[in-house]
Amino acid sequence: MNAEIIAVGSEMLTAGRVDTNSLYLTGELNNLGVEVVAKCVIGDDRDRLADAIRQAASRSAIVILSGGLGPTEDDVTREAVAQAMDRKLVFHPEIAAALEERFARIHRKMSEVNKRQAFVMEGAEVLPNDRGTAPGQWLGGAGVVVLLPGPPHELKAMFEQQCLPRLARMVPPLAIRTVFLRIVGMPESDLDQLIAPVYKKYTNPATTILAANGDLQVHLRARCATAAEADALLAEVAGPIESLLGDRLYSRNGEPLEVVVGGLLREKHATVSVAESCTGGLLGGRFTATPGSSDYFLGGFITYSNAMKQELLGVSPAILAEFGAVSQQTAEAMAAGARQRTGSTYALAVTGIAGPDGGTEKKPVGTVYVAIADAGGTVTAHRRFLGDRQRIRIFTTQMALDVLRRRLLRPS
Amino acid sequence: MNAEIIAVGSEMLTAGRVDTNSLYLTGELNNLGVEVVAKCVIGDDRDRLADAIRQAASRSAIVILSGGLGPTEDDVTREAVAQAMDRKLVFHPEIAAALEERFARIHRKMSEVNKRQAFVMEGAEVLPNDRGTAPGQWLGGAGVVVLLPGPPHELKAMFEQQCLPRLARMVPPLAIRTVFLRIVGMPESDLDQLIAPVYKKYTNPATTILAANGDLQVHLRARCATAAEADALLAEVAGPIESLLGDRLYSRNGEPLEVVVGGLLREKHATVSVAESCTGGLLGGRFTATPGSSDYFLGGFITYSNAMKQELLGVSPAILAEFGAVSQQTAEAMAAGARQRTGSTYALAVTGIAGPDGGTEKKPVGTVYVAIADAGGTVTAHRRFLGDRQRIRIFTTQMALDVLRRRLLRPS
Repeated sequence: MNAEIIAVGSEMLTAGRVDTNSLYLTGELNNLGVEVVAKCVIGDDRDRLADAIRQAASRSAIVILSGGLGPTEDDVTREAVAQAMDRKLVFHPEIAAALEERFARIHRKMSEVNKRQAFVMEGAEVLPNDRGTAPGQWLGGAGVVVLLPGPPHELKAMFEQQCLPRLARMVPPLAIRTVFLRIVGMPESDLDQLIAPVYKKYTNPATTILAANGDLQVHLRARCATAAEADALLAEVAGPIESLLGDRLYSRNGEPLEVVVGGLLREKHATVSVAESCTGGLLGGRFTATPGSSDYFLGGFITYSNAMKQELLGVSPAILAEFGAVSQQTAEAMAAGARQRTGSTYALAVTGIAGPDGGTEKKPVGTVYVAIADAGGTVTAHRRFLGDRQRIRIFTTQMALDVLRRRLLRPS
Repeated sequence: MNAEIIAVGSEMLTAGRVDTNSLYLTGELNNLGVEVVAKCVIGDDRDRLADAIRQAASRSAIVILSGGLGPTEDDVTREAVAQAMDRKLVFHPEIAAALEERFARIHRKMSEVNKRQAFVMEGAEVLPNDRGTAPGQWLGGAGVVVLLPGPPHELKAMFEQQCLPRLARMVPPLAIRTVFLRIVGMPESDLDQLIAPVYKKYTNPATTILAANGDLQVHLRARCATAAEADALLAEVAGPIESLLGDRLYSRNGEPLEVVVGGLLREKHATVSVAESCTGGLLGGRFTATPGSSDYFLGGFITYSNAMKQELLGVSPAILAEFGAVSQQTAEAMAAGARQRTGSTYALAVTGIAGPDGGTEKKPVGTVYVAIADAGGTVTAHRRFLGDRQRIRIFTTQMALDVLRRRLLRPS
């Protein structure tokens, strides 16, 4: 079953304002097994709003509106819904009386305009509002249109107490189970091409692929009558996907890469130190983002200048002169120096050109070398990343963590 | 002139996801004097999206779409716009060639599906994307329909470089001038209380206060017939606000704190190194986020364990035993050790309890010490921050940069 959400109010269309009501409603609807297929924010314009309501109601079983139920001329939701659904608005004297009493309780006289809040569509149920003046409305039938007040604490209380029970009667109960895979070391398009032949055969589970900062996520979401069925369905789809991904799959439960690597280090009772040039500390920042990382992360060196690479890590001037600061040899020497000075099991070194300046034809901006030193020797990797300084630096931390992960999985 | 914004993608319709692109676009359009009258998020459904585009284009002069331009079957924006606007999609071999070359540069073979990104509507101009694979499209005429990529850094660059100049030619000129103040070292509510008596007297310029990660921003935005009028109006409002802020104001042009501190170091021909415990590298990461930071940032030490504080920085075991790793004395010894080992003019050290564990009654989670060593000796500061691990670590980097800024402005 599909739903659409429409937030009403010109103030919701400013650069600093986020429609948090729709996020709350989406979470609650998804929990019921209802999918949100579109959401809108519409300014205080009755005709434009009526168009949007008509279109939403023509294609989705549930339309939820928030806001625009206040007493002033700007508040057009009641009129727009009546227009879109071709219903009359009827004055309810008992709502007006309750409003008047509410004002009296706080020793104020109700303004005449508040009577606008006592109009309800023909055939709609009134949803009382115990936290504000605007009552909501529930228009049932083949399609459902719900009018909720805009202030989040009023909307949440009304939705939870009065809409959820009504919706639960409409929607067959569903068990929803998810699998959250994380993948590193390939572009989004390659990932999709690889696994599409599996997931395209299914509409349930629904598959979503997300990419951010060199990290890929595959979400599988199964909706079935029972949890056991949903789990079986997920296993049927996730199994072949996991086989195709091989060791590029680093997490089956959504844990980020630094947590997975930390777990592998902890298992082996191993420690790690870092030596960072172009990332300037971001790699250490990622290791230490996890509480308890002091179990395996000792510390390290930020050696941004050549002098620091020599003085803090003992990289020889001859290596820097012959191969340059951004080279496999320098990365290796940085890693070896960090390991020797910290006594860590593994030392992870990074050097590269984050840009925008400093690139050459042979070593363009985005060139990155990663080295790991351990008791077995040194392994290195190099890549070229595209994009701006920030992207290159973040992709580099992702690459470095992945190189260490692979080393931990397959020691030489 | 009115605009509508449509974000495309089922992943944008989840409970945790905010469409930040529309907030950015709204701000930019408002700056031009264009009003945003509606915005939508539509899932990956071609017909539903085409309906929404048709409706938006029928009532607003400008329709901007973001997302859905990727290479996979899910990416339906190109087809939906072509359907709504009744245009053919034409294959552009030069786009496919450029994509193939982009992949070749990073030694990868382009997937066949990427060719989908080379289709452009009849009559549309191609908007090149220098930060990603998906080119944008600009369909001009009586109404304008613009297709932009979803990743925010791609969208922003394309909008700024290619759409703003085109839009500026469509919209009658209005002089808009802004002042962008940045403030550190006070909570948002105190800032508002301090400056509200000034800005509340004006609706033009519009004043916005933003707070993020311990950093406060005040945006003043004047819209007048001429630039001179707007500048005069801004001076009238910004002057008294700046006086009230005093040295908590660190930037008048929107530059972030690490750039302001870098500028002060560069002016003095001074260098800095860091010694980080609880921030684990994030402070170095901030210094090196700025291109050219190698002029003043030498490097430093991540000393997460006590052993590393002793071995890499020479902090004496007696200090650690008597005062603990999170103490003024340890911070001072870390700073002195870093300065001695790197030869930097200033050394900035940070130690604290980021949590969630490790707090005590005397030193609760969020306790942070910062020390600066320079030729004049050592200065220290301490604070207690509330919040989660991430917040405490980011606020700590902000505090450390501010302590150094104040030292640079007022050497002892």
